[in-house]
Order: sequence, then structure tokens, then C-alpha cells
Amino acid sequence: MAGHTNGKLQDLKDILAEVSDLSHAALLLEWDQETYMPPGGVQSRSEQLSTLLRLSHVRFTSGEVGGLLDSLEGKVDGDFDSDDASLVRVTRRDYEEARKLSPDLIAEVARAGSTARPVWEKARHDENYTLFAPYLEKNVELNRRIADALGYKERPYDALLNRTEPGMKTSELEAIFAELKEAIVPLVADIGRHADAVDDRVLRREFDTDLQVSYALEVVKRLGYDLERGRQDISTHPFSSGFGPDDVRITTRVSREFFNECLFGSIHESGHAMYEQGMGRDIARTPLYGGASPGVHESQSRLWENLVGRGRAFWRYFYPSLQAVFHESLHNVDEETFYRAVNRSYPSLIRVEADEVTYNMHVLLRFELENEMLEGKLKVMDLPEAWNARVKSYLGVDVPNDRQGALQDIHWSFVSFGIFPGYTIGNLIGAQLMEKVRADIPDLDSQIERGEFGALLGWLRKNVHRHGRKFTPNELMERATGKPLTAMPWIAYVRKKFGALYGLQTAAHN
Amino acid sequence: MAGHTNGKLQDLKDILAEVSDLSHAALLLEWDQETYMPPGGVQSRSEQLSTLLRLSHVRFTSGEVGGLLDSLEGKVDGDFDSDDASLVRVTRRDYEEARKLSPDLIAEVARAGSTARPVWEKARHDENYTLFAPYLEKNVELNRRIADALGYKERPYDALLNRTEPGMKTSELEAIFAELKEAIVPLVADIGRHADAVDDRVLRREFDTDLQVSYALEVVKRLGYDLERGRQDISTHPFSSGFGPDDVRITTRVSREFFNECLFGSIHESGHAMYEQGMGRDIARTPLYGGASPGVHESQSRLWENLVGRGRAFWRYFYPSLQAVFHESLHNVDEETFYRAVNRSYPSLIRVEADEVTYNMHVLLRFELENEMLEGKLKVMDLPEAWNARVKSYLGVDVPNDRQGALQDIHWSFVSFGIFPGYTIGNLIGAQLMEKVRADIPDLDSQIERGEFGALLGWLRKNVHRHGRKFTPNELMERATGKPLTAMPWIAYVRKKFGALYGLQTAAHN
Repeated sequence: MAGHTNGKLQDLKDILAEVSDLSHAALLLEWDQETYMPPGGVQSRSEQLSTLLRLSHVRFTSGEVGGLLDSLEGKVDGDFDSDDASLVRVTRRDYEEARKLSPDLIAEVARAGSTARPVWEKARHDENYTLFAPYLEKNVELNRRIADALGYKERPYDALLNRTEPGMKTSELEAIFAELKEAIVPLVADIGRHADAVDDRVLRREFDTDLQVSYALEVVKRLGYDLERGRQDISTHPFSSGFGPDDVRITTRVSREFFNECLFGSIHESGHAMYEQGMGRDIARTPLYGGASPGVHESQSRLWENLVGRGRAFWRYFYPSLQAVFHESLHNVDEETFYRAVNRSYPSLIRVEADEVTYNMHVLLRFELENEMLEGKLKVMDLPEAWNARVKSYLGVDVPNDRQGALQDIHWSFVSFGIFPGYTIGNLIGAQLMEKVRADIPDLDSQIERGEFGALLGWLRKNVHRHGRKFTPNELMERATGKPLTAMPWIAYVRKKFGALYGLQTAAHN
Repeated sequence: MAGHTNGKLQDLKDILAEVSDLSHAALLLEWDQETYMPPGGVQSRSEQLSTLLRLSHVRFTSGEVGGLLDSLEGKVDGDFDSDDASLVRVTRRDYEEARKLSPDLIAEVARAGSTARPVWEKARHDENYTLFAPYLEKNVELNRRIADALGYKERPYDALLNRTEPGMKTSELEAIFAELKEAIVPLVADIGRHADAVDDRVLRREFDTDLQVSYALEVVKRLGYDLERGRQDISTHPFSSGFGPDDVRITTRVSREFFNECLFGSIHESGHAMYEQGMGRDIARTPLYGGASPGVHESQSRLWENLVGRGRAFWRYFYPSLQAVFHESLHNVDEETFYRAVNRSYPSLIRVEADEVTYNMHVLLRFELENEMLEGKLKVMDLPEAWNARVKSYLGVDVPNDRQGALQDIHWSFVSFGIFPGYTIGNLIGAQLMEKVRADIPDLDSQIERGEFGALLGWLRKNVHRHGRKFTPNELMERATGKPLTAMPWIAYVRKKFGALYGLQTAAHN
């Protein structure tokens, strides 16, 4: 690499570091807003955030960055996978996307979101879809304009999906969802016929909230979440925030009458956080630091929450200490009963409360409906009817009102089509990675039964975490598992696990 | 005001709002660093802070700001005291100061500070002044270069003092300190002869730390610190941070074996915080938001901590509840004994532990020594000797080692001459304001005895808080009390209070 090129690369890195510092400062302001900010701070916080994000955007989309990218492309040393080549490649992708969206469109999108948000809240509260419909209409139109601005070959949804899950196509996702539907709809029905096999009432006993929070923290420390570079706080909705690999925080919430919220919330967020703690320091302060996509990020949280945290081996290790901490509520509950309870599957109306089996069906119907609205095949006014029909068809349940139906998610109150698929992609990636982990670490379950998570975390660090945003989801899966994203490992996993839990003739579905 | 001028004024305000958002974001990053940041975050935090502060400085010192100021000076509507005229005047002062310091000098000052800091820590720990001397030498030189860059007519210290206490001259301060010395040195000696009159051992009994923290919070709420726009956390050193009038936070620290730290720390910081909560929303996001000077800021913290919090009327109201909360330690201590305990005065070696009477003597000797070093009259190598001689002369005590002597304060490890006087200016302003408050609110003590602080806070809001940085300390004192800064009210206050406490013939000193 010529000295000249080295100088340009350093110039680019200097600007990107500044952009990264501004964005991470903004992220800390948001973290603070959700955890400790006094109520009065709302107005000035929103001004501060808007200034930081604007400065970061202006700096990143400046002609200077474009010029440096022009003179660096094809000139830096190293192959496709190298840090420098990846930096130029990923920065170019981000840059083109950011430049294609005009400041006017971005401002309109932001305004539409903040206008629609309170209307959505009222509509949901009043179970009055008609109130919200015109705002959703506007948001659908803005999603379409974003798709047009970004450009696409086949389907408008491709443009939106490419923003969140780079390189993923709508048609590929449709094929994957078709496989899922074929496997899961009958499985859900089958589980429904054996519903009595699992009872989760034990999770509704009383659990001291302070003890829950401290127990959850001990668990995630054991999994490998590094508290020298992280911390756990309380917030209304759990989230994780990374300000660089050396400061990645989680929050959790806690309910005295429902065990799952705190522990599984903490494990889920620590999965996100361990991902960011595992990113190389050499990619910090560059666009390569961060999750490869929301889907890949979700794969890490789901892997730890479900494939590990709802596994038999996990409870073999943790249940004795849990039982000791919550003696009064759990002294007469054995490990097997508790393991079954945290894995109860039943078709429900609300996505965020759905279990492992039914969750992807909630995502599927949103993915289908977003596409149909975007392509004009479904009128916004007809959404509730279409929603309810699909819930009935995929999960077999009736939707009593729009609050528990088409109005349940906050996502459509802002301009955000293309986000939902990441939740399912995350589930699938998690299972696909785990299949490879089990091949590479044959005694994984014995390790987990002994409370040893180091080999698993080490595998994820090496094959996923350290790369940050270097690769698209499929590039990452090719490198980590030898093949692109596929639904089969996840389908096999739920069939086996829930077949055993509910005593099903799962062979019939294979 | 012509439309043209209006437009320029708005342009200026837009830039200043951006600068303010950047600085307040940086301040939140610092708050987080002292309260919740995990240890691993140090490096990336320092990078983020340096980016935010650099961008804020670059934006503020841009030619654009200078051009707008040029075209606005003398053109905006309103008299000297108006918001707009004050905005232009104060921004010009800040701008000129910031422009006079070259980026190279600023960088050298920052580097010198971070280099000297660990050496100072080691020198203090090892009681080895020789180790630190070359670094102090360098810092003295840099203070001199700053003074030269800023410019001065009479004394180099004038330039430094003008940065912290605008409009204050070294010679004025020397006259004030001379008055203080004449009054206080004999008072300290007199108190020493009656030391037995006050016993503070009760403060060293055991006080539950959680109860101390929650009691302190109840007290500051009662004083008027608004928790809708603030909060209290724990940190190693107590501080307050304002991110705008609607989010001003305090921290405190707590010791199980020493009562004063937590309660008086919280009251002190809430005094700072109520000042910033009381600033007008119309000056938020401008250079007018903030303390008029460190001295004026300190006047608010000291006024609440000492003139209110260590007053007889305060304890008349609070002592019964305090006694109930800490029943075991205080049930056999009466209000008078407790009041006397929190007011014990005795000459000590450490400034931050000094009582009301002796505190200003600690400041005086630092003010003198800074001046002498700056003017080359005192060699850095001779500092400890000069220090020890002055402690003996002003307070009558011998300094056993430099750890408790010339190495005790962190200030000289960075380039900061001109900061110390603010502590004394704060004490004096507090007393001068209080003299006027008592004239305007004759039944102040009865109000305080009933736990009513609203009239006092209202007076401070109206006469001090709402103005923010509009006025220099002397301009502010003229408006609030009818005269510039004077030492007499403070001298009269301590003579009366401590004369009574120690049973002195105070008339002899009048």
C-alpha cells in the first residue's frame, strides 16, 4: 500500500472515529434517558440528541468521505476479509445508503414518526384502528418513497430489507418463511392437542424482585458477560447499549409475579452485549464496530436466551442455586417441572410474549402484510381483517380486538418496514450456528451442566463476534457454518425439543 | 431591531445552541464516568469526550461567530441588562478569550496536566515534593504563557483571574484578603484558647449509610431542590452537573463513621444545583446559561451549606426528625449539642476539611503563593518552605509533611492558577447576599424554624439564579445588594456566630 494511500486511509479513519464518537455519545444520552434521566430532562435531551445525530450525519455524508472512498477503493492492501478492505467496502455501502436519502426525506420520516406515535398510543388504548389508519397510510407511503430513493431491481421490499439485513432478498425470505409455515403450523396444532403436558403456573408464584435482579446478574456473569466492561440497570423495556467493546451495558425489568421477565430478559440482553464486547478493539471507532445486522444481533440474544437458557443442561447446573435463592416458592418444584414450565408453548396473540415455536409465525404475518401494503395489494383500511385471518390460519386463535391485533406493535407507528424479519432471521441463525457449535464442541451439554460456558463463548467470539459488521449475514454464515442462512436447523431443533416436551409423534413431520 | 439584525441574531443563537448541546452532552459523559461507567470504559470515554469538546471549541471559535458578533454589536435592542444585549456581550468575552488561546497552547496545557497528574499522585503518596517540582515548574510556566496570551495591564494574575472571576482584579482581592487576615488570624487564635467549648465527637458515632443518603435527599427536597428536574447519585467526590435548567443533578458520598460528609455534601451540591435549576429557560442553550463565575456558584453552595445548614434555625426544624431516624446514635444528644458539634472550628492542615472560620486562610495562602510563583518571586523548589511558614503564621499549626502541605490539592497538578480565590469569593458573596436577604425577609429565621425555605429560594432565584452568566460577579452584587463584593458581612457573620459559640469577647475585634 503506497504511502499516499496510507495517508488517505488514516484521514478516512479519523473522520469515521469522529462520527463514531458522536453516535456513541448520542447512544449514551439515550441510555441515560431510559435509566436515570429525571422527567424534566425530556425536552433538552431531545435537542441534544438531535444535534449530535445531525452533526454525525453531516460529517459522514460529506463529500470529503466520498472523495476518500473514491481514492481508496481497490487500493488498500489485504483480501476481502481484511480489516482495511472491509472498512472501505462497508463504509461505501453505508455512505451510498446515507447519501441516497435526502435530508428532506429524513426529516419528513422523523416528523411522521413523532406525529403518529401518540395517535397510535391512543388508537391502541381505545381499540380504534380507524383513528390510526391515516397515519399508517402516510407511513406506508414514506416506506415506499424510501424504497424508491434507495432503488431495487425486483421488489420494493428488497430496498428496505437491504438496509437492515444487507444482501438478503425478499424472495429468499419468502422461501424460508414458506418452509417455516409448512413445518410450524401443524406443529402448533399438534402441541395444542397435547397442551396438558406442560404446566407453567409455578412461574407465577412470588419472587422477590431484588433477589431476581441479583440472581440474573450472577447468571449472566457466569455466561461470560464481563462486568468490568458492562453493567446492569433497570428500565421499562430491557435493552443493551454498546459504546465500544469496553463499555456495553444491559438493562432488565422485573416482576414479582412472573419469573420469566427478569432472568430471560437479562440473558437475552447479555447475549446482545457479549456480541459487542467480543468485537475487536481494532475495529472500534469505525463502521465495522456493531452488529452485522439486527438479525445477527438477535441471533446472539436468542441463542443465549433460548438455545442455552431454556435448555435442559442449563437448568441442570442452575436450578439448585435458583431453588435455594427462592426457597419458599420453589422448594416443592423439581428441576424437570421447572424446565418444562419455562418451555411451555401455546399460541398467543402478542408477539413479544410468544414462545419459541410460535414466535416466527407472528413475524411471518407481519412480513407478508408489510409487503402487501408496500406493493398496494392490501389497503391500509383492510389491514385488521387480513391480520385476524392470518392469526387464525397460522396460530388457530381468534383476535378479539385490534389492541391485541394489528395495533399491538409500536413499529408501524414510525417508518420502519423491514425490521420485523430480523427477529426470525435471528432465531434461524442462532439454531444454524448452534448446529455447527455442537459439531465442533461435542461435549457442549456436559460443559453447560458444569456451568462452563467458555468454549461456547470462545466459538462465538471467533466465528461471529470479532467480525462486527465486516460481513453481510450470509457472508458471515458461509464463514461460520459453510452455508448461507437456512431454516432447517431451527425446524429440526424445535421439532426435537418440543416433540419430546409434549410427547408428539414428530417423525410424522419429517 | 432591523429584520436583518434579527436574522443574524438567530444565526448566532443557532450556532450557540449547537455548541451548548455539544458541551452538555460532554458533561453528561463526565457525569456518567463518575457515577455508573464500568471501569473498562475509560479509554473510549476519553476519546468521545475529546471529540465532543474539540467540535464544540472549533464551532465556537469559528470566524462565523466572530462575523456575527461584529455585525450585532451595538445593534440589538434592549439595555445592558436585556437578554439579547447580554448574549452578545458575554459571547464576545468568551469568544475573545477562546480565540486568544492557540490550539497548540491548549493542547500543551492538556498534555502537561495529564502528564503531571500521576506524578503528583505518586509524589503525594511518597511525601516526595522533589519528584513533583519539575512538573509544577512546567505548569507555572504554562500559566505564565496563558496570562501573556490573554494579556493584562497590571499583574499577570489579573489575566488568569479574569477567566474565572470576570472583572475581578488581583489588587482588589489582595485588599479583601488583607481585611480577612486581620480579622481572622486573631479570631482563630481566640477560638484556640476556648477550644473546649465545643465537642464534635457525636458526629463520629455510627450512622447507617442508606438512611443518611435518603435523609439527605429529603432535606434537599425540602430546601427546594426539584427532583422532577434533578436526582442524587453516589460518587467518590460529590459534584453537581447541569445539562440545562430542567436536568441538574447532584452526587454525594457517605461515611458510616462521620456524619458531616453526606448531609452537608448533599446540601452543598443542592445549592449549586438550585442555582442552575433557577436559571431562565429563555437563556438555556446560550452562553448565558451557567454560573456567573466559580465564586458566585460557590456562594450558592456555601450559603445553603453553612449560612442555612449550619444555622440554629435549620436544626430547630430538622433535628427532631434526624434524631428519630438515627435514634440509637442521637437519642441522648440534644439539639444544642448537635448544633455546636456541626460548627466546631479548629485550625487544620487540609483545606477541604476546614471549617467556616479557617477555610479562607487556606485559600489566602494559595492565592499568595500562586501570585509569587507566577511573578517569579517564589521559586518552585522553595514552595514547601513558604507554604509551611504561612500555615504556621495564619493558622498556628505545624505542617508535618508535604502530603498534608503543598502537595495536598490536585489543582496544581494541572494548569489552573486563578481557581482557588473563587472559594473565598463564594464565602464572601454568600454572606453579603444573606445580609440583604435578612433585610428583605426580616422573619427569615422563623420561616426556617418552620421548615419554610420558599421565600429565601425565591429571593435567590430573582436576584441571582435567573441571571445565569449575564453579569460579572461585581455587576451581580451591585444589582442584588447595592454594592460590589466586600468582606465585611462575612467577617461580621463569623465574629458573631463563633463569638457566641465559643464565648469570646468579640467586641475586642470590632
